[in-house]
Amino acid sequence: MIDLHYLDNSATTAVSKAAAQKALYMMTENFGNPSSLHKLGINAELCIEDAREAVAKALGAQPKNIIFTSGGTEANNTVLFGAAEALKRRGNRIIVSSVEHSSVYESAKRLSELGYDVQYAPVDGDGIVDLEKLDSLLSDKTILVSIMAVNNETGSIQPTEAIAKRIKRRSPEALFHVDAVQAFCKMPLKPLRWGVDFMTVSAHKIHGPKGVGAILIRDGARMIPLLYGGEQQHKTRPGTESAPLIAAFGEAVKEADISANLSYIRELNDYAVSGLKALDGVTINSPASALPYIINISVKGIRSETMLHHLEQSEVYVSSSSACAKGKRSYVLAAMGLSDDRIDSAIRISFSKYNTRSDIDALIKGLESGIKNLQRKQ
Amino acid sequence: MIDLHYLDNSATTAVSKAAAQKALYMMTENFGNPSSLHKLGINAELCIEDAREAVAKALGAQPKNIIFTSGGTEANNTVLFGAAEALKRRGNRIIVSSVEHSSVYESAKRLSELGYDVQYAPVDGDGIVDLEKLDSLLSDKTILVSIMAVNNETGSIQPTEAIAKRIKRRSPEALFHVDAVQAFCKMPLKPLRWGVDFMTVSAHKIHGPKGVGAILIRDGARMIPLLYGGEQQHKTRPGTESAPLIAAFGEAVKEADISANLSYIRELNDYAVSGLKALDGVTINSPASALPYIINISVKGIRSETMLHHLEQSEVYVSSSSACAKGKRSYVLAAMGLSDDRIDSAIRISFSKYNTRSDIDALIKGLESGIKNLQRKQ
Repeated sequence: MIDLHYLDNSATTAVSKAAAQKALYMMTENFGNPSSLHKLGINAELCIEDAREAVAKALGAQPKNIIFTSGGTEANNTVLFGAAEALKRRGNRIIVSSVEHSSVYESAKRLSELGYDVQYAPVDGDGIVDLEKLDSLLSDKTILVSIMAVNNETGSIQPTEAIAKRIKRRSPEALFHVDAVQAFCKMPLKPLRWGVDFMTVSAHKIHGPKGVGAILIRDGARMIPLLYGGEQQHKTRPGTESAPLIAAFGEAVKEADISANLSYIRELNDYAVSGLKALDGVTINSPASALPYIINISVKGIRSETMLHHLEQSEVYVSSSSACAKGKRSYVLAAMGLSDDRIDSAIRISFSKYNTRSDIDALIKGLESGIKNLQRKQ
Repeated sequence: MIDLHYLDNSATTAVSKAAAQKALYMMTENFGNPSSLHKLGINAELCIEDAREAVAKALGAQPKNIIFTSGGTEANNTVLFGAAEALKRRGNRIIVSSVEHSSVYESAKRLSELGYDVQYAPVDGDGIVDLEKLDSLLSDKTILVSIMAVNNETGSIQPTEAIAKRIKRRSPEALFHVDAVQAFCKMPLKPLRWGVDFMTVSAHKIHGPKGVGAILIRDGARMIPLLYGGEQQHKTRPGTESAPLIAAFGEAVKEADISANLSYIRELNDYAVSGLKALDGVTINSPASALPYIINISVKGIRSETMLHHLEQSEVYVSSSSACAKGKRSYVLAAMGLSDDRIDSAIRISFSKYNTRSDIDALIKGLESGIKNLQRKQ
């Protein structure tokens, strides 16, 4: 792994040793079906419950509030379709921000096709939801609001608690969902204290495996299940639980030292920002207040993909917008009012606790040579 | 693992060494996000495509026909809700057999709540769908038929090809879905040749990990997606693919030697049946024509759970009905016309290639002592 400068941790992360070993153990030794009534089943179930407790604790909730899913996309879909269906007799309006991850954004679009009145809350130049404009969208017919905690392209942090207060004031019947995939285990989250009804999180952004996520569901928050079948997870999410992935997720959560990691990443971020500012033609798109795990930049005159492929030649891995968008133009940066030029040349740099200054040195060097050699070729 | 007699392989299986190692490799080394545009993403994607090819080949299909899901339950839900929605303008009737897995059965129940005309095709005493009665349910308003390949409690094999023919004759507009979770890699399956439109399979019944399955979709078979979000899998199933589980699934499929395993399991089954027949009060509920991987029996006067816990004392692991039902009374055996006494004393024995005669010897010994000691206590 020497000389691999992986700075695409908001796309996905390497699974930690402890988490990977746990998954291996669950696959080969503790392999029972968690629903089986015999000892092998119970042993697998205990590991799932242990993970549920870890996720609950990280969110300041009880294990009964946590439902495991196959990832953030399923979790977001489950909440959006499930809450919309559950509350459809009370109203028709659903509000999402204009910078949501595609799994919320596209679900909202589908809900609009199904007849819901879907409204998009605009953001300012920092990518933060405009609270006054949000207020004007909130009505007594609003049944669901979905606004992410941290944006996946820019790191912009939404004022979740303030949003929750406004929702409760103007739309007391509405449920509030927060996609916290990019925030979970990276900053303190107190969803239940803040007034959040549903929060979705994912394992693979925090050194857990791909294919598992969770939904926090406040006691009494109504939601029709997306999947039907067995008795698992109180029928809210049936199907044989992926015990290996869930147990590994639990390990990754237990390993996460939010505040120590955050200080470390803040230092790395500062170091990167000073290097980036010294480069010609680089603009930083992330606001200063963003979560330091993500820095979004634009490099004048060089298309994102061109720079991405240039950087990977020196084993520096970054992203053009979100991985899930597979190279499509970023609607997130567009919603922030960025020019097409800046959007088309955007690069996302994203950190994990495994990064060091040498990764940033390699990045800056790579950007520098890219700026020197690529601009004239375009 | 010495002295562990695991005879609950239709609930779940131990992950094979090769499959588990592949998952580990994908978690720690080849950990990129398969949607990332850089080399790490492409390397992960290649492993997913390799697995897709393996699953496609095992089903006599092309990789483009295969969509990965988080398991059999998601796969069955996706087809039932997705095909019903796609064809709702053509008709309203949906037919499922009365012995489907809960993920089909409960989805059908939900579709009935949503206004579809759901009909249940009855089975005979062997658990096989009555083709004449099925015929009488098929109409020009039928849009979807879902009948499993092999029953999860009894091993009863449905005449899939004959069913497909009747559907095409009487309901040419209808799509035919086959839940093949208990059949996949255990008997030859030719869904496209047989006239099947959708087939669902799962990894964890064939020594792959829990949390991954797939849907075979015939070219042109219409289905609205269940999940919305990113560009993954042509948007039919968005969300970051669980590359570790998918790649491990591929390994498990590649390892499966259907015909060699089937001969071996048939021998084991014969050996078990002769031992079982020698026991007092044991009735075999599986038909002689069942897939030999499963033997369902009833033990006169001893409740399933009592026997299950007795057997586990000698490290023999079996199941009472399906794991997903968590001890609820079997509607499958009821549909076959079994008496309550026989249903309440049913035990499912299910094999894998890792079983040996010594597992069966332990089972017979355990049943024998159970029959001797438990009957009078009840």
